[in-house]
Amino acid sequence: MSKSIDQFIEQGKKTIETELETILEGKNIPKNLYDSISYSLFAGGKRLRPILLLASFNTFSSHTKKVLKTAIALEMIHTYSLIHDDLPAMDDDDYRRGKLTNHRKFDEATAILAGDALLTYSFEIVAEDDELTDKEKTYIIQSLAKVSGPEGMVAGQILDIEGETKSVSLTELEKIHELKTGKLIMFAIVAGAYLGEASTEQQKHLRKFAYYLGLIFQVQDDILDVIGDPEKLGKPVGSDIENEKSTYPNLLGLDGAKAQKKKYEEEAIKSLQAANADDSHLLELLRYFSQRDH
Amino acid sequence: MSKSIDQFIEQGKKTIETELETILEGKNIPKNLYDSISYSLFAGGKRLRPILLLASFNTFSSHTKKVLKTAIALEMIHTYSLIHDDLPAMDDDDYRRGKLTNHRKFDEATAILAGDALLTYSFEIVAEDDELTDKEKTYIIQSLAKVSGPEGMVAGQILDIEGETKSVSLTELEKIHELKTGKLIMFAIVAGAYLGEASTEQQKHLRKFAYYLGLIFQVQDDILDVIGDPEKLGKPVGSDIENEKSTYPNLLGLDGAKAQKKKYEEEAIKSLQAANADDSHLLELLRYFSQRDH
Repeated sequence: MSKSIDQFIEQGKKTIETELETILEGKNIPKNLYDSISYSLFAGGKRLRPILLLASFNTFSSHTKKVLKTAIALEMIHTYSLIHDDLPAMDDDDYRRGKLTNHRKFDEATAILAGDALLTYSFEIVAEDDELTDKEKTYIIQSLAKVSGPEGMVAGQILDIEGETKSVSLTELEKIHELKTGKLIMFAIVAGAYLGEASTEQQKHLRKFAYYLGLIFQVQDDILDVIGDPEKLGKPVGSDIENEKSTYPNLLGLDGAKAQKKKYEEEAIKSLQAANADDSHLLELLRYFSQRDH
Repeated sequence: MSKSIDQFIEQGKKTIETELETILEGKNIPKNLYDSISYSLFAGGKRLRPILLLASFNTFSSHTKKVLKTAIALEMIHTYSLIHDDLPAMDDDDYRRGKLTNHRKFDEATAILAGDALLTYSFEIVAEDDELTDKEKTYIIQSLAKVSGPEGMVAGQILDIEGETKSVSLTELEKIHELKTGKLIMFAIVAGAYLGEASTEQQKHLRKFAYYLGLIFQVQDDILDVIGDPEKLGKPVGSDIENEKSTYPNLLGLDGAKAQKKKYEEEAIKSLQAANADDSHLLELLRYFSQRDH
């Protein structure tokens, strides 16, 4: 990993977290709800989605302030989805990144409401963003809702739950991941390019780049569940095999999964070159995603 | 009840339901999620919030098409809140309006996701509404998020849950209702006036009208739990007394609650007159709310 990309990620993380810390200040939120929201917003997230948004935007513009609220909204939607996914009725997880999940730290009702609040508030943040024109706000809200809603992330979660009780093909697996994690990654890349005023042609290629990036993210997740270090991951490994979950290694074998990742990488790089954006942090982030160990 | 207001309500209900029926058509939503969303959207709702929005808008404009998508978004947010409120971790209700609640008809995971989907989709609908300018979309999304989120309806739900285990004063009770049900009613009235291009002064008075209307709605709800007809209500009565819930009759006695409702009515009518809007369906809807038997 080059020093430059590490610095970019570290700097991006700081920028996002500073913004997150101030965003809820002065808001009139009941204490218990506020605590529950804050707890999950600062539970050690890697901020990968907002960092991708920054990287995509910075490929075309240096006025970073313009995308900060959108980045925050994106991180809030990601956080809401984790809180709801962890609920007893869904994945029933007690820990995430080594810390108690929201419903275990607080209670189920509070966790459901904290998720609802984060989801709702994310749209308010964009609608109130002074850095954007009304046209830009509308575009961002429409895209963000579309990738998160019943045709996006929520659809992915339903299909994922249904997939747990039956075997799925590689194509079905790609579809679930595209909806469940890929769509938010796509939003990060495309919204960044749009706000940075990339050409329509560039946005088209970056959309393709984002598609493969999302798949790489997921393959690596599945690979880490086989060969990852539980210490670094902050969670036990091997649960996918045990649960006979549809994963890349379970479907293709470990070497097959690695080969598949390589294919996705080549496609992603091709799209990045077509967008004339391969001389940016996006290329390094692609490698970072692909090689991450946690 | 005059024939005219009955007709207005009946017509409004039809308009909303026709719009609801077409809105999800052609959407690429997984079947189980689609069924769950549809089930709750068509579970016999009275459509009071969208009807209030129509009435407020029609006080100033007859181009009803302009507010239809906003009305749908409002009804979707109301529906999501009912689905989540009914969950085992919240009110744990098996029936609503005589039909199984969403999580009893489907399952808990599906109900949580159906709520999430409706909430998210409501913002997409407004962002995509061709009848509105980008400025109007931004205003509607910002207001709708604000009344529904951590400073609005979600805050009301948290406080309501907390209030179940302690006694609250009349002022605290008013606050909970203002947040939990009042804010969406306020949105209906104020957004209708804004889109109908009422003056800022008129919007200010209607905001006050909406505040009292919301309280009247709640007092009557509480009164019906004491003297209502279970057949008409589609649910048993008397549960508030049994659960020692903080309600108007429990705090003020039945006659006291009725007197309080009368006070709210007088204030509401004063505001309606100040807004020069007392020659509209809003006055009749106020009486309808105040006297409803279900």
